[in-house]
Amino acid sequence: MALIVQKYGGTSVANPERIKALASRVARYKALGHQIVVVVSAMSGETNRLISLAKEIMATPDPRELDVMVSTGEQVTIGLTSMALMDLGIKAKSYTGSQVRIVTDSHFNKARILKIDGDRIRKDLNAGYVVVVAGFQGVDEQGNITTLGRGGSDTTGVALAAALQADECQIYTDVDGVYTTDPRIVPEARRLKSITFEEMLELASQGSKVLQIRSVEFAGKYKVKLRVLSSFEEEGDGTLITFEEDKNMEQPIISGIAFNRDEAKVTVLGVPDRPGIAYQILGPIADANIDVDIIIQNTGADGTTDFTFTVHKNELNKALEILRNIQAHIGAREISGDDKIAKVSIVGVGMRSHVGVASQMFRTLAEEGINIQMISTSEIKIAVVIDEKYMELAVRVLHKAFELEEAGIS
Amino acid sequence: MALIVQKYGGTSVANPERIKALASRVARYKALGHQIVVVVSAMSGETNRLISLAKEIMATPDPRELDVMVSTGEQVTIGLTSMALMDLGIKAKSYTGSQVRIVTDSHFNKARILKIDGDRIRKDLNAGYVVVVAGFQGVDEQGNITTLGRGGSDTTGVALAAALQADECQIYTDVDGVYTTDPRIVPEARRLKSITFEEMLELASQGSKVLQIRSVEFAGKYKVKLRVLSSFEEEGDGTLITFEEDKNMEQPIISGIAFNRDEAKVTVLGVPDRPGIAYQILGPIADANIDVDIIIQNTGADGTTDFTFTVHKNELNKALEILRNIQAHIGAREISGDDKIAKVSIVGVGMRSHVGVASQMFRTLAEEGINIQMISTSEIKIAVVIDEKYMELAVRVLHKAFELEEAGIS
Repeated sequence: MALIVQKYGGTSVANPERIKALASRVARYKALGHQIVVVVSAMSGETNRLISLAKEIMATPDPRELDVMVSTGEQVTIGLTSMALMDLGIKAKSYTGSQVRIVTDSHFNKARILKIDGDRIRKDLNAGYVVVVAGFQGVDEQGNITTLGRGGSDTTGVALAAALQADECQIYTDVDGVYTTDPRIVPEARRLKSITFEEMLELASQGSKVLQIRSVEFAGKYKVKLRVLSSFEEEGDGTLITFEEDKNMEQPIISGIAFNRDEAKVTVLGVPDRPGIAYQILGPIADANIDVDIIIQNTGADGTTDFTFTVHKNELNKALEILRNIQAHIGAREISGDDKIAKVSIVGVGMRSHVGVASQMFRTLAEEGINIQMISTSEIKIAVVIDEKYMELAVRVLHKAFELEEAGIS
Repeated sequence: MALIVQKYGGTSVANPERIKALASRVARYKALGHQIVVVVSAMSGETNRLISLAKEIMATPDPRELDVMVSTGEQVTIGLTSMALMDLGIKAKSYTGSQVRIVTDSHFNKARILKIDGDRIRKDLNAGYVVVVAGFQGVDEQGNITTLGRGGSDTTGVALAAALQADECQIYTDVDGVYTTDPRIVPEARRLKSITFEEMLELASQGSKVLQIRSVEFAGKYKVKLRVLSSFEEEGDGTLITFEEDKNMEQPIISGIAFNRDEAKVTVLGVPDRPGIAYQILGPIADANIDVDIIIQNTGADGTTDFTFTVHKNELNKALEILRNIQAHIGAREISGDDKIAKVSIVGVGMRSHVGVASQMFRTLAEEGINIQMISTSEIKIAVVIDEKYMELAVRVLHKAFELEEAGIS
């Protein structure tokens, strides 16, 4: 008997038929004697519907009140999911994030989980219940409803698995695992049977849509065994996320290609090149709770420096406004933004022991005439920022250049 | 400066435009220096949408899980309403029933309020906030979400007014006050400027749709000054519900006519006429939490008795099932149900000092050939159960017979 946390996303609960299918799957696991905690997202489209409704009232919805509203999406799903289980004769009970208590900080719309009280759930599991928990949401110490931001249901699943010391956290989605890249862009993309936590982290942070990055961080931190599976297929083992490289295995050089067109580029030109200038620029951005991804600084010959960084597209205008307010103070010549960019990354632990990966990537792009605007690297990743219109082309030629259609980790 | 609780129903928050109109009205009261608590219902149609969704999953939705779902209707509205106020530059903050804490018993779908913690609201009011509270919902001692049943938002409004010792509780609805009867049936119906609490209670319990009965009971118990107003009109004082009859005022004999076609009749024929039989029949009905309205017992000549009572139409089948299970035990000859009935009531404190009101009512109905199936009376009310198809006719002829188009309490 194992304790399994199963997380189902929006497409897995899109309508009553899908919810019934979900319940049947849970019933099969339950029949094997497992204890099951089900974490569900809002029905697909519901969160966007609620956000649109809010925007009809207030152009920039108040963050606290928006969380009050959008958290109802998952609340409806937990009720429906519990009833679907009961309809199969299974004891089930739902909890909102607030009821569990999934305690978060007070950053509305993008809260972070601080602690989870697993007592009520454990009690219910021991009494034979399947426990159904609303993903994506929590409650702060003052009792305000919070949400974790997009993709937060994955985080809820992993965090619950950690808190309950579950044997496995299964993330059900509309793909049957992690692929070398998105099969909609490269039809030859292959499913990976397993992938290391580090690679997954890079793939997730680089924009692979399979898992939300914070959930992968959580899984790594608490050593939660994480598996990605399809909710549309009865069979299949999905992709297992492992925490150690298999030393005996011949590693391919790279295991996957991620891409992301959600970012925008902010450029600050001609600021005096003096100590502390990076902080003067990025400090106010951080204070406004805007996440920054890639940061590049180039010092020119004239005693000034150019500073470029990327933020989420939704926060481009806010970032530009902040910088224009301090433009005179920091002495910048020009401040500009560009949201027509895309980021493409190659990821693989094999990179560590292979030289020339970067140069192969740059040559491949050059051969297609794709100009590289920014480069960012880590031990197991190389990311480039390019013109948005070349994104699909870049992913395809890189997938071919690194022979991913044949390799994969298998 | 007064503390006013304003309750807005589903049609008053039906869409973003209506919510903005609501916010403008609140803003006007706030500008006069008043402290305002706003109680809102779900957007019209939303509660039914959620119930239908639940029924697609489970024919008889689990009561606990149904409350988890349907309570989201008001939760969306409080977010929207708060944002609409903020958009007008007014500080606003929303609370779910659970957050307030509106503590109820654990009768899901029809919970009763046990106590309200007004501390957070009072603190916010003193800090200059308009506080927006979700109607219709609460939380039990175990932290489960509960709902108060249909019309429960009125009860929330009055209960909050009582807990906060508000100066007035204003119920905004789609009519501009309490009428002598429904103007859709009798165009000559007149708005009452005031009505006694007792009359209102009878009108509400007899099916007048303006106010939910439990809210009127609450208002009476805690002496809350209650006013019914239209949310569609800028002007008008609505109808004030008073707690004392004005002795100096010439009372009309009756002040209003109520009607109700939500009830069904259950008949138990030929049970042995022995002590305790009423309890044997109604005990199991009460145990199933089914509300019974009119009860009539007629003893026959043959040592048996006939027993008739009314329940809500939705609970007719449940009631019949319960009785058929005990039919042999209680020795009943026949058990039958009829949901093609309607109840029509005349209400008025003036009845106390006027004889012949009942006979005038019965004569008026007889002249139209309307057969009376059941009669129930109280000090200020006479209710009759008739064939559903004669309901409108009965209301019209009684309105005319008692000269309500001319009288009214004015």
